[in-house]
Amino acid sequence: MATEPLSIERSKSTLRIENDIETLAGSDYTQTSDAIQRYAYTPVYRNTLDYFTAALKELGFDVHEDCVGTLVARNRPAGEEVFGIGSHCDSNRNGGKYDGTLGVVTALEVCRLNCDLGLDLPLQVISFLEEEGSGFGQMLLGSRITAQRVTEEELKNRFRAIDDGRSFWQSALDAGYQPERWRESIHILDDLVGWIETHIEQARVLQDTHNRIGVVTGIAGYVHGDIWIEGRQDHAGATPMSFRQDPGPIAAEILLELERLARVEMGKGTVGTVGEIEFSPSLINVVPGRARISLDVRGTDEDSFRGVISQLEAFAETAATARGTTAKFIQRQTLPATPMDARIVDALESSAQTAGEPFMVMASGAAHDTMCVADHVPTGMLFVPCTDGISHSPDEDASPADAALAAEIILSAIRKLI
Amino acid sequence: MATEPLSIERSKSTLRIENDIETLAGSDYTQTSDAIQRYAYTPVYRNTLDYFTAALKELGFDVHEDCVGTLVARNRPAGEEVFGIGSHCDSNRNGGKYDGTLGVVTALEVCRLNCDLGLDLPLQVISFLEEEGSGFGQMLLGSRITAQRVTEEELKNRFRAIDDGRSFWQSALDAGYQPERWRESIHILDDLVGWIETHIEQARVLQDTHNRIGVVTGIAGYVHGDIWIEGRQDHAGATPMSFRQDPGPIAAEILLELERLARVEMGKGTVGTVGEIEFSPSLINVVPGRARISLDVRGTDEDSFRGVISQLEAFAETAATARGTTAKFIQRQTLPATPMDARIVDALESSAQTAGEPFMVMASGAAHDTMCVADHVPTGMLFVPCTDGISHSPDEDASPADAALAAEIILSAIRKLI
Repeated sequence: MATEPLSIERSKSTLRIENDIETLAGSDYTQTSDAIQRYAYTPVYRNTLDYFTAALKELGFDVHEDCVGTLVARNRPAGEEVFGIGSHCDSNRNGGKYDGTLGVVTALEVCRLNCDLGLDLPLQVISFLEEEGSGFGQMLLGSRITAQRVTEEELKNRFRAIDDGRSFWQSALDAGYQPERWRESIHILDDLVGWIETHIEQARVLQDTHNRIGVVTGIAGYVHGDIWIEGRQDHAGATPMSFRQDPGPIAAEILLELERLARVEMGKGTVGTVGEIEFSPSLINVVPGRARISLDVRGTDEDSFRGVISQLEAFAETAATARGTTAKFIQRQTLPATPMDARIVDALESSAQTAGEPFMVMASGAAHDTMCVADHVPTGMLFVPCTDGISHSPDEDASPADAALAAEIILSAIRKLI
Repeated sequence: MATEPLSIERSKSTLRIENDIETLAGSDYTQTSDAIQRYAYTPVYRNTLDYFTAALKELGFDVHEDCVGTLVARNRPAGEEVFGIGSHCDSNRNGGKYDGTLGVVTALEVCRLNCDLGLDLPLQVISFLEEEGSGFGQMLLGSRITAQRVTEEELKNRFRAIDDGRSFWQSALDAGYQPERWRESIHILDDLVGWIETHIEQARVLQDTHNRIGVVTGIAGYVHGDIWIEGRQDHAGATPMSFRQDPGPIAAEILLELERLARVEMGKGTVGTVGEIEFSPSLINVVPGRARISLDVRGTDEDSFRGVISQLEAFAETAATARGTTAKFIQRQTLPATPMDARIVDALESSAQTAGEPFMVMASGAAHDTMCVADHVPTGMLFVPCTDGISHSPDEDASPADAALAAEIILSAIRKLI
């Protein structure tokens, strides 16, 4: 394990990263000039893969795409251990320059520094496809294929292109890939002894706490669901208050209880959100007959965030019963929390310390490709700040200098870990 | 003033009323067989006016339609004092057999009893058009024209047929009326010394308290408006609870406070309802950036219901400020409460007492044509129960026997009042 300090010219890294980002925001790399719009099997996505391929080949990497189009570049022959770095380079349909792409660019910069400094660390870059779901409406699609978290039926029939309705399978075939070999995608992880992804934070914690780097300790698991409250629809003018079975106040009580429970669990990183609310029939002069609120409850502490759901479910039933009505929780989907590997977290933390810039240890509330990689490989993640937490928007903004700092920290951490 | 008891065969009235209602639910009188659908200037509305015209002519009434199509029938020549009774015979687009029509049918039954018993009380029946707004999207349109609560500009341009976009003006012309004389419509009230309307309650108070008649003391005024709460849109996973400016919990607090305030004012008949609620952008995984709740606050006590609005407005501002955001109340429209005439209420109450069936004194939460008549004439209203409060629906149900009871009470009251 090499520990002597690295001598890195950060401003040089910053310029290279800035150049990559700005180039990839150009007209060859996005379907619209109003935003970054880039997803799998489009010409602009092809150009983006070609950009990274050329840059990595220049560094002596062997570059290929797997059976569905995942970009894989390594500086060691197959069978030899390598350390994985990367992210995704597809974007939201109305996306910004940084979400995803900055992680692949930072990985590329790690490879450049690895050359510049003559370290020759064994590295493998991966750029997953379709993290955003812009092509086929499926988030984390590329990394889920790699982790075998999909079915052949889904790839052949259920997952369809938003643009033209073709199946994922047909779309991959038409793009020259071999989707029938999708189960082989997992082998791109075979030689990995670790994995680190860089991503913009997509929230404002780093900005507001004046930190330049977040060392991620875990990616939140979540429960998505709805609480349905049945009441009785009545005339808003003609029905005295004491005659009502209005589901609205019950929804309000549940919403406030969710906030209270999440605040109690705040120390454990649990968050709870009601993003959608619906009263039926939704007329100003009608007491609603039914209400629905959506629940998004997340956290890295499984007991904590799942406990909030079960306490809220019980609260909802009690609150509804107290008003002579019923409330029912129906889960949409759930994913467990993904803890990061303690050894990688430690290495990133001590490298961040050495780098001398303000950083913090934090959880990721958002999902990332790393969740799928973590099934098979010890993983870590770094966050860099983005302005006002804005993401999935052309207004997305982040600093190439922070990404340069991340590249330095990753390179330093990998030296310790290899 | 005649006070000797009337000898009325209620079962005969019940059968006549039932026959009227069922006839007017037949295919000649509704545009669809799934519901009652009847509005001004349609053939089925024409048939309905013809039905009442024939029935009233048979009783010796002089019948005409005013310049816009209001049906007016009287058993005294113009210039002589008469007592007004009636309602409207248009329906909701997906309406039932009773809303409106039962009031005109009950008025017809009062006229029949007046003949049967040889009382020869001076009566004038009015059937207003377009109470429901099904033709031109304007509630109480006929009685508002009579009360001059519209402008010529509205009639000529703004009020347009839902079916074909023609102006009210053109539609009235095409139906053979003289809309240019609309200001004369007020003269149909000239000879009225009083006015009583019968209507189904449209709520469940009478049913649930086992009363057959409601003597209305006033029609609620109302404030319609919205509270807009500005927050900050954030990622639901990545934004810790302490970093949020979520407008959702503020909306919930305001909703619960409205319920609390309305319950405090319950003794004064005030009610408050949030029928609509909206979070933006309304995505399960996004902390909303903005919330809106609608407010419908009504009552017959002006100070009470307007006080609820002003207290709630102050509460909303405080609640939003406490969370570092803003909330603003924006009024859509308001109407003052319409008290019924004390002498008419007394006469109806004592006649209901004499009739010997359970009744109660109550406010009307819903709006009625009587609000417009009350501008110019002392007014009263009777409610009869409707099953489960269901109205504006093909499932609307009410009892012809209760309407027969109402006819008896009205006839008896008019005897006292004339």
